[in-house]
Amino acid sequence: MKNINVLLLAAGDSERFWPFKDKNFTALFGKTLISYSIDQLARFGLQNFVIVGNKNNLPYFENLIKQYPQLIISVVEQKDPRGMAGAVLSARNEIKGKPLIIHSPTDVFEDSLISGFTRIKDADFDAMLAGTDVSEYFPGAYLTVKDGFITNIIEKPGPDKVPGSTVNFVFDYFKSTDKLIHALTAVKSGKDDLYEKALLEMIKNNQKIKLLHYKGYWGFLKYPWQVLNISSYFLSQIKSPKIKNAAVDLTASIIGNVVIEDGARILEYAKIVGPTYIGRGTIVGNFSVVRESMVGASCVVGMGTEVARSYVGDGTWFHNNYVGDSVIGDNVSMGAGTVLANYRLDEKTVISRVGKEMINTDRTKLGAIIGNNVRIGVNASVMPGIKIGRNSVVGPGVVLDNDLPDDSFCKFPENRYTVKKNILDIKKIKRHNTVISK
Amino acid sequence: MKNINVLLLAAGDSERFWPFKDKNFTALFGKTLISYSIDQLARFGLQNFVIVGNKNNLPYFENLIKQYPQLIISVVEQKDPRGMAGAVLSARNEIKGKPLIIHSPTDVFEDSLISGFTRIKDADFDAMLAGTDVSEYFPGAYLTVKDGFITNIIEKPGPDKVPGSTVNFVFDYFKSTDKLIHALTAVKSGKDDLYEKALLEMIKNNQKIKLLHYKGYWGFLKYPWQVLNISSYFLSQIKSPKIKNAAVDLTASIIGNVVIEDGARILEYAKIVGPTYIGRGTIVGNFSVVRESMVGASCVVGMGTEVARSYVGDGTWFHNNYVGDSVIGDNVSMGAGTVLANYRLDEKTVISRVGKEMINTDRTKLGAIIGNNVRIGVNASVMPGIKIGRNSVVGPGVVLDNDLPDDSFCKFPENRYTVKKNILDIKKIKRHNTVISK
Amino acid sequence: MKNINVLLLAAGDSERFWPFKDKNFTALFGKTLISYSIDQLARFGLQNFVIVGNKNNLPYFENLIKQYPQLIISVVEQKDPRGMAGAVLSARNEIKGKPLIIHSPTDVFEDSLISGFTRIKDADFDAMLAGTDVSEYFPGAYLTVKDGFITNIIEKPGPDKVPGSTVNFVFDYFKSTDKLIHALTAVKSGKDDLYEKALLEMIKNNQKIKLLHYKGYWGFLKYPWQVLNISSYFLSQIKSPKIKNAAVDLTASIIGNVVIEDGARILEYAKIVGPTYIGRGTIVGNFSVVRESMVGASCVVGMGTEVARSYVGDGTWFHNNYVGDSVIGDNVSMGAGTVLANYRLDEKTVISRVGKEMINTDRTKLGAIIGNNVRIGVNASVMPGIKIGRNSVVGPGVVLDNDLPDDSFCKFPENRYTVKKNILDIKKIKRHNTVISK
Repeated sequence: MKNINVLLLAAGDSERFWPFKDKNFTALFGKTLISYSIDQLARFGLQNFVIVGNKNNLPYFENLIKQYPQLIISVVEQKDPRGMAGAVLSARNEIKGKPLIIHSPTDVFEDSLISGFTRIKDADFDAMLAGTDVSEYFPGAYLTVKDGFITNIIEKPGPDKVPGSTVNFVFDYFKSTDKLIHALTAVKSGKDDLYEKALLEMIKNNQKIKLLHYKGYWGFLKYPWQVLNISSYFLSQIKSPKIKNAAVDLTASIIGNVVIEDGARILEYAKIVGPTYIGRGTIVGNFSVVRESMVGASCVVGMGTEVARSYVGDGTWFHNNYVGDSVIGDNVSMGAGTVLANYRLDEKTVISRVGKEMINTDRTKLGAIIGNNVRIGVNASVMPGIKIGRNSVVGPGVVLDNDLPDDSFCKFPENRYTVKKNILDIKKIKRHNTVISK
Repeated sequence: MKNINVLLLAAGDSERFWPFKDKNFTALFGKTLISYSIDQLARFGLQNFVIVGNKNNLPYFENLIKQYPQLIISVVEQKDPRGMAGAVLSARNEIKGKPLIIHSPTDVFEDSLISGFTRIKDADFDAMLAGTDVSEYFPGAYLTVKDGFITNIIEKPGPDKVPGSTVNFVFDYFKSTDKLIHALTAVKSGKDDLYEKALLEMIKNNQKIKLLHYKGYWGFLKYPWQVLNISSYFLSQIKSPKIKNAAVDLTASIIGNVVIEDGARILEYAKIVGPTYIGRGTIVGNFSVVRESMVGASCVVGMGTEVARSYVGDGTWFHNNYVGDSVIGDNVSMGAGTVLANYRLDEKTVISRVGKEMINTDRTKLGAIIGNNVRIGVNASVMPGIKIGRNSVVGPGVVLDNDLPDDSFCKFPENRYTVKKNILDIKKIKRHNTVISK
Repeated sequence: MKNINVLLLAAGDSERFWPFKDKNFTALFGKTLISYSIDQLARFGLQNFVIVGNKNNLPYFENLIKQYPQLIISVVEQKDPRGMAGAVLSARNEIKGKPLIIHSPTDVFEDSLISGFTRIKDADFDAMLAGTDVSEYFPGAYLTVKDGFITNIIEKPGPDKVPGSTVNFVFDYFKSTDKLIHALTAVKSGKDDLYEKALLEMIKNNQKIKLLHYKGYWGFLKYPWQVLNISSYFLSQIKSPKIKNAAVDLTASIIGNVVIEDGARILEYAKIVGPTYIGRGTIVGNFSVVRESMVGASCVVGMGTEVARSYVGDGTWFHNNYVGDSVIGDNVSMGAGTVLANYRLDEKTVISRVGKEMINTDRTKLGAIIGNNVRIGVNASVMPGIKIGRNSVVGPGVVLDNDLPDDSFCKFPENRYTVKKNILDIKKIKRHNTVISK
C-alpha cells in the first residue's frame, strides 16, 4: 500500500449543499469527513495523499495537513474544470509514476471496502472500480459486469432502464496512473462525463477493469439533508454508553448508547436517548430531551427543548424549541417557542428547493436546514424542508415557508396589530383557577 | 321486566352536536352511549329492544346488535319525521301488544332510576314519566304534579314562567302501547310537539300518568361541549386507581383515581392526576400532564403537553400543546406549540356559535371542540369555544377565532413577511449566557 | 438621633417609572420601599418623620403611618412644585426647629451609611451630603471635595466633564433646618435646581458642608427596569435557604438561597434556584423553573414556565411562559405559549422608550415591563424592553414591538387567515410515529 498514491477529490463547489459551504468539512463526532477519509486510508498503510481542492477550501487543507506529519500529503488546486477528469489532470504531476486510488471523502464507507481491496491478490487487471447494490433507483453510474469485470458504465439511465442493481461510487484504483492520464487526454469531447468516457475507452481497448463489489454501508452527500443519513450511520457506530468528565444530574435519564464529552452538563430532569452524541462543554437543560441526535460542542439545549433525529453543529443555542429531523449549523440560536416543523400536514414526503428545482427528499420527516450564524426570534415556525442561509435572521412570530437566502433579515411588517381602547374593567374580574387543580 | 319493550330513540340528526356526527356514538371508557343504555337496561332484566335510527346510523346499529345475541333487538328507520311521536309510530309494528319504555341513550342517569321504577308495585296508573328537579332554568318540558300524578306538561315555559322545578327527561313508561299509539294517531296537528300533545290528551281523558321522581345524576347531550359534563360524570365513577398491563416509568407521578388501560405507556416525568382515564395503547410522553380527563385509545400525548379537564377520542396526537376544557375527536393531530385557549381575556362565560345562533355555554372555561380527522399545524392558537369541522386543516401560526367548517383548509396568506438584507455581522456578536445561569 | 427630623421625599410623579405608578410602593419581600426606609432609619433611633407626598399617594401614606404607633410621623402634601426645595418648603412648619435628615425612599443603601453617619463626632460642620463613587458616568450631581468638605456641586456635567467620581444621592443632613429654609427662600430663580443652588449659596457663604463618603450598595429607581437592580440586591441579602410552612414536592429541586413563604406550593419536577423569593400562597407548577427572581404572593407559575432574573408582583399568573429579566406588576396573567423575549437578535443593549425619548437601558438582557392588571393571550411575543400599560390587554399571537398605553386593547385584525376547501383525504393518511421513538 505504501507505493500507492491516493487522490482525494475535494474541489466540488457544494452548490447543492447550500446553506452549508463545503461538504468535506461536515463534522461527525467533532471530526471532519476529510479527516475521516485520511485516517481511514492511513489505517490500511496508505501514506501518500494528494488533495485536489478549490480556491476556497485550499487554505483549510493546507492547514489540515500539518496535523499529519507522518504522512506525505500535498494539496493541489483543480484548475481544469472538467469534473473528475479535471481533478486527476490538475494533479497529474503529483500522482504520476505510481498506482492510484481516487476517492471522494464525502463517500462514506466501512473499513471492509479497503480490507476487501487489500485482499485481492489477482494480478490480472488494470483498474478496479467500487460498486454496490442499490434497492431503489439511484441517479448515478450503473455498472454492467461479466466474470467480475466491468463491461459498461451507464450514467443516470433513468429508473426504467437500469441495467442491473450495481452502481459505482468513488473509490477507483488504477495500476498505472500514466495509462489513466493517457486515456483521459485521449478523449476529445466531454466535460463532467469525460472521466467515464475515458474508462469506457479503456474497456474498449481491452484494458481490464475489475469490480470491487462492496456490501457494507455507503453514505454520500449531495443535498444538505443527507447529513442526517451520515450522522445516523456514525451514531449507530456507538456500541456502548460513554460518559466522560461530564456532570450528569442524578434526576436526568440517560438511555441507550450515549456519548457525552468532557465538560458537558446534563441538568435536572433532562433525558437523553441513544444513539446520541453530546459534544464537549454542551449543556442540556431542564426538561429537555435529546434523542438519536448528534449535537456538537459548546451548545446549549435550553430548558424544554426536544432535539430528535437531528444534526447540530457547534455553539448553537436552543431554548424551549422543537428540533426534529433537522440539520443545524454552527453558532445558531433560536428564541423560546420556536418550532421547526418536521412533518407536512398532508404527511407526504417533504419537497425542498435546490437552485431552481424542487427536489423530493424522499423523507416523510424532515425539519429545517439552517446555515451557520443564524438567529431566529421567539415563537417562529419554520416549515418542513425549508432552508435558512448563513448569517440570516428570522424575526419573532414568522411562519417561514420559503427558503431564506444568505445574509437576509426576514420579519413581519410593522403595525400588524391594532390598538383600541380597552373597555374591560380588569380590576373587577374575579379569577378562576385554571392552571392548577390539584 | 321481560315482558316490556324498550324503544331507544336514536334517530335525531345531532345537528347542534356538530362537529361531531351522532351523539349516540359518544364513547366513554371506550364504549358508546347506545351500548351503555342497552347494558344498563339489560342489567335490570329488560330483553326486548327496538332502536329507532336514521338512514345514516342504521348500518352501525345493525352491526352493533350482533354483539347482543342474548337480547332481542330490532332496528327500525324513523320514516315519520314528527319527533318523538314519529319515532314511536315508525316502530308501531315492533312494539305493539306489550308495555313500553321509551328512552333516549343520550340521557344519562344512574341505575337508581330503573331500580326506582322496578320498585313501584302500585297498579293504578296508565303511564309514567321520569322527572328530576333542576336548580336553574332548563329549556325543556316542565311537569306539574298533584298527588304523584302529572297534571300538566309545559314545554319551554321561559325562565319567568316555570310552574315548578321538575322537568321531564326521556324515560317514559306505558302499560298499554296500543293506547299510546291510539292517542298519538288521534292528535291531528303538531309536529315536534305531537308527543306532548298526545300525553296531554291522555291526561284530559283521565288516563293516569304517574311521576317517577328521580334525584340522581342526569346528563344529556345537545351541544358538543356537554360531552365534558358526561365525561366528568363517568370519570367520577372511577373509585380506585387501576393500572392494567401498562408501562409506567418509575419517575412518573400517578395521583388519585386513574385508570390506565392495557398497552399504555407513561414515560419519564409524566404526571397523571385522577379522575383520569387513559385508553389502550396510549402514550403519555415526557413532561406531560393529564388531569381529570378522558383520553381514548392509541393516542400520543407528546412531550410537554397538558391535557386538563378534557375529552379526547382515539388515535389523537398532541405534541407540546395545551389542551384545556376541550372536546377532541378521533384521529386529530396538533403541531408543537399549538394552544387551545380555554379562558376569555375578559373571563366571561364562553359563547359558541350553533347554526346561526350564538349560544352561551355557561362555562367560564371552555377550550376548543375539534371534529374527527383534523390536522393543526405548529404554533397555532384556537380561541375558547371555537369548533373545527371534520377533515379540516388549520395552518401553522393561525389564530383561529371563528368556527371552521368541515373539509376546510385555513391558513395565513402567503408572503406575510418581508425579506431584506441583513446588516448585522452575526459572526462578530459575542454571546451572553441567557439560558443557563447555574 | 431622637432630636432629628427625617423628611422623606415621596412627592415625585414617577412619570419615568411608567407603567408603574409610584416608586415608593415598590414591594420587596412583600414590603414597600417607603416602609423599608422608615424601618431602617427607626432601627438607628430616628423617631420623627415627615413624609412629603402628592395628592395621589397621600391617602396611602396616611394609612401607612397607622402601622407605626411608636413613631411620630406626619404627612404633608407638596404644594410648592419646585422639586426638592419645594418639598422642604412645603413641610417647613413640620420640620423647623430641629436638625433634619432629608432622604428619598427610592435611594436604597446599606445600614453602614447610617452607622457611618452616627459615628461622626466632629461638631465643626453645618450640613452633610452623602456621596458615593461611581465607575461609569451617572447623570446626577457630582461633588468636588476638599479636606472632607464639599466645594462644588455640578449637576449632570456630561460624560466628558466629570470633575471626579463622587456623586450625591439623597441622604442629606442639616444641623439647622432654619438655616436651610433661609437659604432656600433666599434663592430667587430656579425650579428643580433650586435646592442645589441654595446649597451652593451656603458653600459660598462659608457654611461647611461635609461629605459623608459611602462605599456600600446604592440602588435607585428612576426607570422601571431599575426595579431589577434593587430586587437583585435584596435577593443577594438572603443568606440561607428558608422554607416556611410550604408544601415542596419531593421531586422538586430547591438549589441555593431560596425563601419560600407560608402556604406556597412547589409541585412535582419544579426547580427553584436561589437567590429567589417565593411569596405567600404562590404556586410553582410542574416543569417550571424560577431562578434569581422575586415572585410575590398568590402567584401561579403554571406548568412549563421559566422565570429568570425577574421581578413579579402579587396575584400574577403564568402558564407555559418564558419570563426573563422582566418586571411584572400585580394581577397580570399570560396565556400559554407567550414569551417575553429578553435579548435582541443583534445582541445589543436594549433601548426603551420613556416619554418621547429612547433610553438606552444599558442592559443586554431585558424582557418586558408590564403594569398591573394586564392580560396577555396565548402564543403572544413581547419584544425586549417593551412596556405594557396598566389594565391593558394583548391579544393572542400578537408580536408586540411598541409600548402599549394604559387601558388599551391590542390585537390582530380580523380575518387574517384564508379559508379554502381542503383537498386532502385525511382519513386515508397513514401516520408515522414522530413523537415518541422509544
